[in-house]
Amino acid sequence: MNKKSIQVTASILIIGNEILSGRTQDVNIATLSKWLNTLGVKTKEVRVIPDIEDTIIETVNNLRNNFNYVFTTGGIGPTHDDITAESISKAFNASYEFHKDAFKILEEYYLPGEFNEGRQKMAKMPADANLILNPSSGAPGFFIENVFCLPGVPLILQSMLGGLKHVIVGGNPTLSDTINLKTVESEIAKSLTKIQNHNNEVEIGSYPFFKAGKLGVSIVLRSENQKKINECKTEILNLISKKKIKIIKK
Amino acid sequence: MNKKSIQVTASILIIGNEILSGRTQDVNIATLSKWLNTLGVKTKEVRVIPDIEDTIIETVNNLRNNFNYVFTTGGIGPTHDDITAESISKAFNASYEFHKDAFKILEEYYLPGEFNEGRQKMAKMPADANLILNPSSGAPGFFIENVFCLPGVPLILQSMLGGLKHVIVGGNPTLSDTINLKTVESEIAKSLTKIQNHNNEVEIGSYPFFKAGKLGVSIVLRSENQKKINECKTEILNLISKKKIKIIKK
Repeated sequence: MNKKSIQVTASILIIGNEILSGRTQDVNIATLSKWLNTLGVKTKEVRVIPDIEDTIIETVNNLRNNFNYVFTTGGIGPTHDDITAESISKAFNASYEFHKDAFKILEEYYLPGEFNEGRQKMAKMPADANLILNPSSGAPGFFIENVFCLPGVPLILQSMLGGLKHVIVGGNPTLSDTINLKTVESEIAKSLTKIQNHNNEVEIGSYPFFKAGKLGVSIVLRSENQKKINECKTEILNLISKKKIKIIKK
Repeated sequence: MNKKSIQVTASILIIGNEILSGRTQDVNIATLSKWLNTLGVKTKEVRVIPDIEDTIIETVNNLRNNFNYVFTTGGIGPTHDDITAESISKAFNASYEFHKDAFKILEEYYLPGEFNEGRQKMAKMPADANLILNPSSGAPGFFIENVFCLPGVPLILQSMLGGLKHVIVGGNPTLSDTINLKTVESEIAKSLTKIQNHNNEVEIGSYPFFKAGKLGVSIVLRSENQKKINECKTEILNLISKKKIKIIKK
């Protein structure tokens, strides 16, 4: 198969009552999506679900069958509401047990006498899981088959992605170009539709913005093919010059 | 049925390639969840999906059968990538047509001669949909049965929620109390599990934080019953006093 024709897909599963209640503003979706794109993996779906075992099991089993990769965030800490590792074990019908290397890493991470029961829990995961090393706070994540389990704390999650770069096999990354215009969407909607209709290898997105007193529209061109983006951009630049619309810095 | 025993549920469906690509940081999930909670509606699931008609139809039909309310954001503007209204029409087997009042509102909103084809598109929606008025930029959202369609631009979305307060019928709001501790999760994990085990009407969440040089754990107690929260809090305060853990301001 030609690498060009392969679309490698991912879904992101945010596990945590604190996101669903609105108490915590998620930032991991954007971090993971952008990082996955650099590896040629396209995020096709995100779900946010509560810390409920049956829901985690059902959702993970659904997603891992529908996407090449699944990335979960949250629920791998030491407290009673951290049930991701045990739930994933059940989703895979794997036993939930101490991972020898994870236990060793954590044992060395803590001072003698401080490796208590709560901390030991962080070494438990599905049998035969692979570790995702954690350079910032010790406790590793893990992956089993195509399901990758990361922590919810954004800075820790970010620090762990580097170690996964060579594990994830992607296709071509999606390239993009953005033009910011001093106009409103409805001024260009009809012409943009025409341009989209004969540029089917480019996905044209139109996003209004209101920022620091500026009002405008960002036109985002996305494709695996830079030449197609350039051709499409030329058409849009012709359109806005004809309509006397100004390009602005955002 | 006793109002106390009813749990009214919602799901949020974020429609938009720009969220999935990581280009745009979503903030609508937190806005909607917090607002829904004040009305006694609990957000049980969030999905983020691309601007693909079949995906929108399938997801909306799944969610509207599983939750009391569905709130969608995004895709109701004037451009070619705004396909929410047409997709929702198909999900309901309703015709996609001009809404008389929406057409009138938009016609009056724009100057004579400026109500062009792109703008007129924003008056099209499923037959018999009800309008959600938009005090900030004219174009209304709509709802049909239990599915409420809002725009993706956060400030516009926020301005439209006030008008929905009396349309949504909720149960009891979830109350919460937070204690911020100068400790790490693993110091209190075991004791918290015990407290959770005999406080089953209170959901105890434990969330580590690293902020402005402070490191700690937020313990969040959530319940419909303030008395149960208070009892649980007393137990936690006893625990931390016994363990000599300090309460801190976050």
